[in-house]
Amino acid sequence: MASESNQSVYRATTTAPVNIAVIKYWGKRDTTLNLPTNSSLSVTLSQKSLRTLTTASCSANYPTEDTLNLNGKPQEIQSSKRTLACLSNLRALRKALEDANPSLPKLSTHPLRIVSENNFPTAAGLASSAAGFAALVRAVANLYELPQSPRELSRIARQGSGSACRSLMGGYVAWRTGELADGSDSLAEEVAPASHWPEMRALVLVVSAEKKDVPSTEGMQTTVNTSELFATRAESIVPQRMDAIEAAIRDRDFPKFAEITMRDSNTFHATCLDSWPPIFYMNDVSRAAVRLVHDINRAVGRTVAAYTFDAGPNAVIYYEEKDSELVAGTVKAILGANTTGWEGAFYEKLTSVTAPGVALENIDSRVLDVLKDGVSRVILTGVGEGPITVDEHLVTETGEMVSQ
Amino acid sequence: MASESNQSVYRATTTAPVNIAVIKYWGKRDTTLNLPTNSSLSVTLSQKSLRTLTTASCSANYPTEDTLNLNGKPQEIQSSKRTLACLSNLRALRKALEDANPSLPKLSTHPLRIVSENNFPTAAGLASSAAGFAALVRAVANLYELPQSPRELSRIARQGSGSACRSLMGGYVAWRTGELADGSDSLAEEVAPASHWPEMRALVLVVSAEKKDVPSTEGMQTTVNTSELFATRAESIVPQRMDAIEAAIRDRDFPKFAEITMRDSNTFHATCLDSWPPIFYMNDVSRAAVRLVHDINRAVGRTVAAYTFDAGPNAVIYYEEKDSELVAGTVKAILGANTTGWEGAFYEKLTSVTAPGVALENIDSRVLDVLKDGVSRVILTGVGEGPITVDEHLVTETGEMVSQ
Repeated sequence: MASESNQSVYRATTTAPVNIAVIKYWGKRDTTLNLPTNSSLSVTLSQKSLRTLTTASCSANYPTEDTLNLNGKPQEIQSSKRTLACLSNLRALRKALEDANPSLPKLSTHPLRIVSENNFPTAAGLASSAAGFAALVRAVANLYELPQSPRELSRIARQGSGSACRSLMGGYVAWRTGELADGSDSLAEEVAPASHWPEMRALVLVVSAEKKDVPSTEGMQTTVNTSELFATRAESIVPQRMDAIEAAIRDRDFPKFAEITMRDSNTFHATCLDSWPPIFYMNDVSRAAVRLVHDINRAVGRTVAAYTFDAGPNAVIYYEEKDSELVAGTVKAILGANTTGWEGAFYEKLTSVTAPGVALENIDSRVLDVLKDGVSRVILTGVGEGPITVDEHLVTETGEMVSQ
Repeated sequence: MASESNQSVYRATTTAPVNIAVIKYWGKRDTTLNLPTNSSLSVTLSQKSLRTLTTASCSANYPTEDTLNLNGKPQEIQSSKRTLACLSNLRALRKALEDANPSLPKLSTHPLRIVSENNFPTAAGLASSAAGFAALVRAVANLYELPQSPRELSRIARQGSGSACRSLMGGYVAWRTGELADGSDSLAEEVAPASHWPEMRALVLVVSAEKKDVPSTEGMQTTVNTSELFATRAESIVPQRMDAIEAAIRDRDFPKFAEITMRDSNTFHATCLDSWPPIFYMNDVSRAAVRLVHDINRAVGRTVAAYTFDAGPNAVIYYEEKDSELVAGTVKAILGANTTGWEGAFYEKLTSVTAPGVALENIDSRVLDVLKDGVSRVILTGVGEGPITVDEHLVTETGEMVSQ
């Protein structure tokens, strides 16, 4: 929402969440428009733990070029085709409003000053670009007072970073691959709000990675172009899994949700391994997390935990609040209390946990030391809401960047 | 060949080689007959480095039960359906000879005493069962003076251990999946003898494995039953690769041979990862070996090395003799001279190597320490011959086991 200031600096600020896919996006059928080869589905994570905060501002008094500052560092906006595509799409929508209603201030003609900051380290290997582009699109849309729905805005955010389109909504979000060449039907939509299944928790095990293998933008096209297994996943496996996991979410059927999540993570990494040259994102620590989850589920006698891995070694473990002690409690006992990140909004159920929820003799002995040595921190979070408009601006009323 | 002794103890002794597949066998369509879901192709490794030595003997004076001693330990032969199937098939062939020619001694009625030993530790994670069953079948066939060709005997060895059928021949060996339900056309055959392309070398990096993940017999059926990517490999990818690698072998086209070998290893492990629960055989050391090979090929500017991994973390690196310094020389420089296994028949080209063939600044720095810490020994070998009849018996003329 734009607020008119004395010096005609217009501002709007939003937060946006990270999302972690349970049916993975991997492969583009159009690299310019970021059109995916398959649909995907994610859980939006709570902004009590992880969020991007972005202020979009504009003023006729600003120097002519749009600027973007991220975590205190000016970005080369003119060389980022993806950022330019988002801004140009948003300006066009504002221009249409102004053309239809001449009484509106001509914000589309003003230079933009955008300031953004994450509350988590980029080095943690979390999908910061999704939250970043979602916040940018949402903030500018608010500044321009655009009437478009999150679903409609997802078309724009997608061009910034594919998975960003899913961070415009909370809860359980599907990104439909769409069929049209111009991408106009490749949109994100809410499958269920966070309130439908609020008990979902996510424990991120941040793995001390060396250098990342292959950036995902490059890696996914290597897979599309070289993996002979890839088409089978994109064309026949994922469509079935999308239907099945949407049903599992509708029914709040955790065991079903969990199995599909784990299997799709495995299939995704299998297509990476099948690429040429092969791409490895999981390492021995990741594999220890896989074994841990299978061992916990086996020991408990039902499926209480699900792992998933993005294009990096970090494990995200989904579980339900009621199983906190069995899952997060066991991880806490293995890692030891010294591992950082246990504090925060979702910690209540675990404060008093001192013994593992699952006795450690049920866990493959190889797993314990590998995890203890390899996990540098945890992030304890849960399903959460979409972008939220806030009044804490990163640009002052006179257009100065707030010092951080 | 049987030799009649004073006390009517008949003996025949053979060696048999290990083979390492370049198109992997993974999955049975019939678990009793060991009929594979797809054809496979392997390189028979020289017995100068690795071999099983097996003496088959029989005598009317032996106690009634067949016995098998392996590496000094009596085996529970009666509980091994696979061993019993091999012996019963071989006896039936002998019986047919005896029925046709009544002057032959009735060896098929004598109890068997079989003694076998490997010249390599079972713990090395090499496919010892392939060499073991090939030697057992070849030794008994010799004892019985069976006229069947290695191709015909491969039908029997296959029932002991699938990949054993490929160890009955030297050089480059294909195992055709066959189409008949009784498995009579699921046979191994020589694609090219070792002499066609004798320059092929194999460097085995023995990785200090913890406990093995899932035994291959169990693992492959998990993959068949659960991986949604598996059918694509078995039905469409492997048939194309079989044709292509046979052409590469015919043309002695190492770069083509190498790429297919590496890609099929990756696809095989991808289907393991896609299994439910997932199966991991490669670890961080294996992945370092993958990176090393890609880095060497990149630095040299042509494909001089190819990795492949069986159901375990050991890397087998194929290369041609002329590239010994570039490939094995670089590995030797990375591992240091203290790593055991460099000596032996194929070491000549490397004795004088002190500097890496490829400068180590071309190798991903993560690779160097991981390999140095993770590889416990190497085995330097090359393509070799099939089973060889020898006079060094492991059973004396009077039927006693030779003390080892």
